[in-house]
Amino acid sequence: MQRMKPILFTRGVPATESFPAKEMAEAASAALEQHGPALLQYGPSPGLAFLRDWIAEWKGVEPARVLTGNGSLQLLEFLCLVLLRPGDVVVTESPTYDRTLTLLRRHGATPVGVPLEADGPNVEAFEKIVRARAPRFVYLIPDFQNPSGATCSGAKRRRIAALAEELGLLLVEDAPYRPLRYRGQEEPTLFDLAPGRTLHMSSFSKLIGPGPRLGFMLGTADLIVRLARAAEDTYISPSNLAHGIAYEWCRRGHLPGQIERLKALYAPRLDACLSALARYMPEAETTRPDGGFFLSVTLPEGVDNAAVRSAAEGRQLQLADGRAFFPEAGGERFLRLPYCALTPEEIDEGIRRLADSVRDLQKTPAAQLVSH
Amino acid sequence: MQRMKPILFTRGVPATESFPAKEMAEAASAALEQHGPALLQYGPSPGLAFLRDWIAEWKGVEPARVLTGNGSLQLLEFLCLVLLRPGDVVVTESPTYDRTLTLLRRHGATPVGVPLEADGPNVEAFEKIVRARAPRFVYLIPDFQNPSGATCSGAKRRRIAALAEELGLLLVEDAPYRPLRYRGQEEPTLFDLAPGRTLHMSSFSKLIGPGPRLGFMLGTADLIVRLARAAEDTYISPSNLAHGIAYEWCRRGHLPGQIERLKALYAPRLDACLSALARYMPEAETTRPDGGFFLSVTLPEGVDNAAVRSAAEGRQLQLADGRAFFPEAGGERFLRLPYCALTPEEIDEGIRRLADSVRDLQKTPAAQLVSH
Repeated sequence: MQRMKPILFTRGVPATESFPAKEMAEAASAALEQHGPALLQYGPSPGLAFLRDWIAEWKGVEPARVLTGNGSLQLLEFLCLVLLRPGDVVVTESPTYDRTLTLLRRHGATPVGVPLEADGPNVEAFEKIVRARAPRFVYLIPDFQNPSGATCSGAKRRRIAALAEELGLLLVEDAPYRPLRYRGQEEPTLFDLAPGRTLHMSSFSKLIGPGPRLGFMLGTADLIVRLARAAEDTYISPSNLAHGIAYEWCRRGHLPGQIERLKALYAPRLDACLSALARYMPEAETTRPDGGFFLSVTLPEGVDNAAVRSAAEGRQLQLADGRAFFPEAGGERFLRLPYCALTPEEIDEGIRRLADSVRDLQKTPAAQLVSH
Repeated sequence: MQRMKPILFTRGVPATESFPAKEMAEAASAALEQHGPALLQYGPSPGLAFLRDWIAEWKGVEPARVLTGNGSLQLLEFLCLVLLRPGDVVVTESPTYDRTLTLLRRHGATPVGVPLEADGPNVEAFEKIVRARAPRFVYLIPDFQNPSGATCSGAKRRRIAALAEELGLLLVEDAPYRPLRYRGQEEPTLFDLAPGRTLHMSSFSKLIGPGPRLGFMLGTADLIVRLARAAEDTYISPSNLAHGIAYEWCRRGHLPGQIERLKALYAPRLDACLSALARYMPEAETTRPDGGFFLSVTLPEGVDNAAVRSAAEGRQLQLADGRAFFPEAGGERFLRLPYCALTPEEIDEGIRRLADSVRDLQKTPAAQLVSH
């Protein structure tokens, strides 16, 4: 019997074929030739000065407002170290990025979720929660949200920014997918709308690749200083070798072309996802993102994520546990589909297997669907 | 008036002229060509498999016992995350590496110091403390200790290893300077003597340079798994780009030659330090290391580190605060001299300025010497 090829709808990783390996090799030689000592020595804890300058110019801020580090998750860890005390409340979308929840819990914080809708967080719930719970900070992914694929509307962004100003909230805006808009209109960032109240996070992981571990934050100069101190106490200085090479690649002007190539590679994958869902699961409730790495499916009433995962495994289809993305309870019927690292053919086949798995479960007596 | 050139005896950084920038540039091109996807993608949280294999073979252990990460301080942070609870005791030498103390305190642990002698920790004090205080772990730098320059004798190592076996202690052996022995006989590591009880830490920061942030730990396979989980929750995977380049440099066989070049560069600097101390401060009590980055001076009775630092500043000589290296009280007369990043001429001139600063203070009424 022919064994089916496994298909993984598990992790939000970029496509291997998207990596600019040759350009990075050239950048590596040039950077080591021109900046060898800076790339091989210790350096300032907020990162290489020329890299911070480059990002500052790209983003239109002062260099003192830029912090670079070994991936944006590590930078979020520094924020937790600096700001959180056990028992603190942090407000997130529900669902949200599971690794953020892991970090928050590691610091003893209590994540409190705001229900996410197709156009961003439910703002009435958001307002009620931030007024009642006095969160240490608010963590949001306004663009092509991980895990849902939802993008926050302009109106909701303005309402959230206004509340941040009114209540003195710190908004942490995680925006690694923002440059990957395949269609539609870009909304302003929270950092645009409330620059004194927002810590904007992004990364080169979805642009160059995760391997250089180059994340960055834009914030107020005094918060950046405090975060850089936590960075120094943790790793002295970031990976100057990797970051210096990424800098040289940027300096050579490769970023705009790379973003265009990524869009050309990923947009058809999103379309393949949407077509396959329309074909094989026409009744499914899904998000319809205009960019990024993810879309999400709400499974039919009575069909449990855990049961689907287990049925899908028999069909060589791997799915992530939807519940991991929920700060409090929930997610039993939530399914995240990261599509960027799969070809359109794999996506079509994967969603066919998913539809078959769901259909099988719908034929099964309900008692067998409950996961343990 | 001619301004004197500033001389920095502050940080234990390698000499910029020691960096193998050209070899690293060649390694970068080759590594990106051969392993581009691995260097640019996410990877396993304990590090690139081929790098772990290489280190395992170099150190004669199973690859499952090797953890790589973004610098050894970051790995120590993972150990703290996994093992420490607020109030835990960690035994260190006194003095010890100041950044380790910062990390321990950040985790709410209480560092307890064992007096350090020219041939390693006082073992009677060590035994008494570990029996009385039940430390969560013991942190030691047996080779060319930071900050003192002392190396632990074979007899003391065996006694410490035997106590670890008897009492079930975890020994954390920080050994980044060990390969840089300029003369004399190498002693066995604690990891050699008590492999099931020792977590051995090292790094390429003093071999290739700090820029790649490549540290590693050797331990029991189950502890490595727990540390790798903390790593994954913190940064997903380490800097595969930087580490893949360092791997390729190692694979090309550059390490033995580089170590010989470093010894040839640094040994005369250590000698310059010892000669200058003999010439300008013949009465000074100093360690006489056989390798590494540091030697240390005990200032004359009544001469305070803070007063010397302030007097030295007027002579364009920068010194570190000796007290920062002490887990509990002490260090008022302790001075660390990191010599590797200075030329023999700068070392001679620096120690001349140091001697002048001390002599001036000895002429000053004692009341003015006390630092605040």
